[in-house]
Amino acid sequence: MHNNSKIKIGIYGASGYAGFEAVKLIRKHPSTQLAFATSESSAGQTLSDIYPVPWDIPLISASDAPLHEVDAVFCCLPHAASMPTVIAAREAGVRVIDLSADFRLDDPGVYQKWYGVTHTAPNLLAEAVYGLPELYRSQIAETDLLANPGCYPVSVLLAIAPLLKANLLDPSAPIIADSKSGVSGAGRKASLTTHFVEVNENVSPYNIGQRHRHTSEITQIINALGGAGDKLIFSPHLVPISRGMLSTVYVSLTEDISSEVAWELFVDSYATAPLTYILPLGQLASMAHTQNTNYCAISVTSVSPRQLILCSSIDNLGKGAAGLAVQNFNIMFGLEETAGLL
Amino acid sequence: MHNNSKIKIGIYGASGYAGFEAVKLIRKHPSTQLAFATSESSAGQTLSDIYPVPWDIPLISASDAPLHEVDAVFCCLPHAASMPTVIAAREAGVRVIDLSADFRLDDPGVYQKWYGVTHTAPNLLAEAVYGLPELYRSQIAETDLLANPGCYPVSVLLAIAPLLKANLLDPSAPIIADSKSGVSGAGRKASLTTHFVEVNENVSPYNIGQRHRHTSEITQIINALGGAGDKLIFSPHLVPISRGMLSTVYVSLTEDISSEVAWELFVDSYATAPLTYILPLGQLASMAHTQNTNYCAISVTSVSPRQLILCSSIDNLGKGAAGLAVQNFNIMFGLEETAGLL
Amino acid sequence: MHNNSKIKIGIYGASGYAGFEAVKLIRKHPSTQLAFATSESSAGQTLSDIYPVPWDIPLISASDAPLHEVDAVFCCLPHAASMPTVIAAREAGVRVIDLSADFRLDDPGVYQKWYGVTHTAPNLLAEAVYGLPELYRSQIAETDLLANPGCYPVSVLLAIAPLLKANLLDPSAPIIADSKSGVSGAGRKASLTTHFVEVNENVSPYNIGQRHRHTSEITQIINALGGAGDKLIFSPHLVPISRGMLSTVYVSLTEDISSEVAWELFVDSYATAPLTYILPLGQLASMAHTQNTNYCAISVTSVSPRQLILCSSIDNLGKGAAGLAVQNFNIMFGLEETAGLL
Amino acid sequence: MHNNSKIKIGIYGASGYAGFEAVKLIRKHPSTQLAFATSESSAGQTLSDIYPVPWDIPLISASDAPLHEVDAVFCCLPHAASMPTVIAAREAGVRVIDLSADFRLDDPGVYQKWYGVTHTAPNLLAEAVYGLPELYRSQIAETDLLANPGCYPVSVLLAIAPLLKANLLDPSAPIIADSKSGVSGAGRKASLTTHFVEVNENVSPYNIGQRHRHTSEITQIINALGGAGDKLIFSPHLVPISRGMLSTVYVSLTEDISSEVAWELFVDSYATAPLTYILPLGQLASMAHTQNTNYCAISVTSVSPRQLILCSSIDNLGKGAAGLAVQNFNIMFGLEETAGLL
Repeated sequence: MHNNSKIKIGIYGASGYAGFEAVKLIRKHPSTQLAFATSESSAGQTLSDIYPVPWDIPLISASDAPLHEVDAVFCCLPHAASMPTVIAAREAGVRVIDLSADFRLDDPGVYQKWYGVTHTAPNLLAEAVYGLPELYRSQIAETDLLANPGCYPVSVLLAIAPLLKANLLDPSAPIIADSKSGVSGAGRKASLTTHFVEVNENVSPYNIGQRHRHTSEITQIINALGGAGDKLIFSPHLVPISRGMLSTVYVSLTEDISSEVAWELFVDSYATAPLTYILPLGQLASMAHTQNTNYCAISVTSVSPRQLILCSSIDNLGKGAAGLAVQNFNIMFGLEETAGLL
Repeated sequence: MHNNSKIKIGIYGASGYAGFEAVKLIRKHPSTQLAFATSESSAGQTLSDIYPVPWDIPLISASDAPLHEVDAVFCCLPHAASMPTVIAAREAGVRVIDLSADFRLDDPGVYQKWYGVTHTAPNLLAEAVYGLPELYRSQIAETDLLANPGCYPVSVLLAIAPLLKANLLDPSAPIIADSKSGVSGAGRKASLTTHFVEVNENVSPYNIGQRHRHTSEITQIINALGGAGDKLIFSPHLVPISRGMLSTVYVSLTEDISSEVAWELFVDSYATAPLTYILPLGQLASMAHTQNTNYCAISVTSVSPRQLILCSSIDNLGKGAAGLAVQNFNIMFGLEETAGLL
Repeated sequence: MHNNSKIKIGIYGASGYAGFEAVKLIRKHPSTQLAFATSESSAGQTLSDIYPVPWDIPLISASDAPLHEVDAVFCCLPHAASMPTVIAAREAGVRVIDLSADFRLDDPGVYQKWYGVTHTAPNLLAEAVYGLPELYRSQIAETDLLANPGCYPVSVLLAIAPLLKANLLDPSAPIIADSKSGVSGAGRKASLTTHFVEVNENVSPYNIGQRHRHTSEITQIINALGGAGDKLIFSPHLVPISRGMLSTVYVSLTEDISSEVAWELFVDSYATAPLTYILPLGQLASMAHTQNTNYCAISVTSVSPRQLILCSSIDNLGKGAAGLAVQNFNIMFGLEETAGLL
Repeated sequence: MHNNSKIKIGIYGASGYAGFEAVKLIRKHPSTQLAFATSESSAGQTLSDIYPVPWDIPLISASDAPLHEVDAVFCCLPHAASMPTVIAAREAGVRVIDLSADFRLDDPGVYQKWYGVTHTAPNLLAEAVYGLPELYRSQIAETDLLANPGCYPVSVLLAIAPLLKANLLDPSAPIIADSKSGVSGAGRKASLTTHFVEVNENVSPYNIGQRHRHTSEITQIINALGGAGDKLIFSPHLVPISRGMLSTVYVSLTEDISSEVAWELFVDSYATAPLTYILPLGQLASMAHTQNTNYCAISVTSVSPRQLILCSSIDNLGKGAAGLAVQNFNIMFGLEETAGLL
């Protein structure tokens, strides 16, 4: 394929961990060409100035980005900062994969409640498709505005979606997601929270008791799938690793189900999902199953006929951010779903 | 105090992590004198041959230990290996703090089921007291055979005991304990499971779905406190830290309770427990709260009027093993409960 | 390219860290087909039984390996164990890339001294080529028996080779290599040395004072390049990371050289080396520069006109083992040198 | 001892890692009473608000500190910020242990060169004693202004002082100190340098080639002991651990010395140093030897009759900062040198 027949990509926010991961994936992708990468904090430098890599990609200010020359943009900006960029890209007719939270929630009021800012493009919200291919592959294929899910929601939702779709989750029982996340999920900005000495040799829960923003996102999709979103109890924990996420999810069922039947339900449910796989019965998903990959790995464990434990493993920068974004991009552009991702 | 008025202690299994921790505590304890320390694998060497410490304590074979010269022994041997030593000590009239699982379970049949060996001293089982001072301080004071709890049970039981004693746990709802443990809890024996490269940058669940031996121990105490032990769902995870344990426990209540009332219940319940403390409302217990200490720290978070999340933090070698053992020893010998532990 | 036109590869010792890394590289290599993978400890299982990966490759005993059907084998066996396999492969006319130490040393007496076993194929020693492409590319292209260097030698030799070739190293001064290695370099076999708790939060020197086996290998090449191999002081340290190696090398020069001139010497020396790169003056090589890659990154720092510090970074499983092995394979088979490695 | 007979201590900068460590040591010290602890960033809070500890000590602004009520102050402020506090304390007649760099260098010009600020109390410089008890115990006992050494200088100087005092170091050969430091040495201020993801799984040299400020301090003492300070080559590296420091020091000797003689020299040299110990010949000092202690552990390895490798291990917050400060305090006040430190 000639370079000029490749799909031209712009990446906003390339100096953050997710943005940098997107750059790495797009660089190696067989069908894409990286047209520009932006960073406000490092504009004028190159990526090798801020990351230990042997290749150079110039970083420019977003205001200098040749938006009209690209076919798609990946927005890897913080929430709220993403909105104006997405609006500009859509006005320019450029397809958008937005990794921020700005277009994930249907209701601008809910967005304002959790993120503390007024949504400035509520009209685009209706247009946006939630980018979980395992649930919304056909809508993703046709959208021009893809809201890439948060890392926690990916890990939790993939763990329970097969049960929700089969109408097997007891609507009166809590859905408990005890999630453990690596530190890159907190972004590259220096803070005491991510200081090595504070994180190392520690496991710390944070924002438990329904105070994490991702709660609203998970709840929305549970509801969309006919479940009881308000029964979600989501407890994130920070663990001393760089990248990786494991959600241990506890659910109650509406009927007795053997572990074999439960396992088959999951296998069937993801039979056509090339980047989500179910471990054999008896094995348990750990972070190592997906680290430095773009996969989600799920294990199914039966505690009793009415109770399951799902362990769901993703790399928070892979299937939890940039890897998933490229998967969505592939679907949007009619490419092989796993192109550049294996 | 003259040396010969000090309480003479023998430590069996001093070369393991818990045994070594016991040696360190006894060395600094104001009222004790270490009479001997055993290790079969390192007999003839000294502790500084196998641990990086600047002081020397000879390691002898258990068969050479002057059992009749001591007032108490700490048994830090693996399960099953502990039984004959405990029997011999009791026959010699020596008081025993046993850190193995051999005397924790009331029912020898349950012991055999979980540990795969026949109990050879069922008569001593009746005599043994379960060493959780927050629950059984007066019995501990009078026993000659103390069964020191497992690390997971300590963290889980202290998180729910106040609710159990107040009869507030919904007996029809699961008690979900999602526990994260440092690697020293797995012992010092080399195995692929504890190989640095396998543990590092990983979080891995293991023995979930009621397959961990500590399930039986937690269940027994829940039942003893009038709760529904069979409702326990206990999920241990290995995390890449050396020492520390955090249990995130999810419970349902029988009546609506405000977070303030729940918090006060915990504070009151542990008002006389010098090594267990409740964090202020709004703070969450992390491993760092208790690392390298002998404390248990608990946080209380209300999700809804009927649902609480308790985060319970201990050092698995401190309040989860040797620190707790010394606390029990202090009670047994009428010493200040925290002597040598702060 | 049809599968049957691909180069057929066998991998011995696929269950160790280096062997597993070789499998991963060969799987993705555009010109190869993995014909078999052996493991004595896990024969009958598949790789996904022993590593957390979503693809299955059967592991067979070496005695069942169809050696005559392959074009090349990667021997990832321990030293001594490798010899008979290499002999058999050469007798079968199969080209060999041997990752063990068995064919690195020219002198069988030196081998016996350091490795404690008699060399059983001294005739093959003469045939073997030391696989450092930056030094021996043309010989590598023509050999049938490639001795893949040890990880420490790669990092140290690439740091000093340009100076040796330019005859700039003071033969009367020590060459001090202070090396730091991740734990995967110690192999996957469980031992107290690699126990998480022993490694974590620790940095430990080992075998310093010329007691590490790799000393002999580095010395031999220094001598071969006209240097004073006996002036090497090599000090390995174990650091708590999974993969990575950094050698900080201190050398004295025979003449005054500015940092710019020294830097240019290195840049020129590696101008045709696609997997070794020199950092800009002022930057320092860290492990992160090469982690999870097959590169070597080197920084040049001038302390005084006669003294340089070279920091040399490799991934011990990449450029320090399997990545380098594939680079050598590429050269041997006339493929693009970086095929499957970027 | 009644509280009012205890030595009253003030701690400035109690919210940093070294300051917090000083608080912990002073709290447990048998002869001291903590009178105040200051923190500008956290004034009005307590220590348990910013560190996970179960005890409360109020943090006040330095301007509110009752300086005239204390017998001694520990200044744990950053360089430059320390000067005015030290001046004020000395004017108030309060004895000072200063952990900053402000009073370590004899020459205010050298101070200005390395720290970029003009020294405002050059008269006090003459009065200050460099707080390395192994070298200057008698001067420490009588000073009112103690300049507590930097962590790197402690580890390097204790490794070479016996050789310097015996006039055994070849003045024409480099003294190479390759040091590895845990992250707490960089302080608690958030920065990209200490971000978990940047540090984790990495070893990175920094400020090598004589660019680290501690070079000047080490050089000064080498010179003071009659050595060739300008021959020092000091290379610090950051390693992914919280606390600990290991310096591997390479020296050339003026005469042939057996390893036994070298070892005895070290043992004799530190015979009266209660917190510095020499490992048996054949053992190597690792970080684990001193972690969470106030010791320095040194190993002596002979490479050749004229070359030694000294491995010197300290906890950067213990013997490298607060532990050493308390040791100096003990000497200044005529207490047992190890009081509160074992």
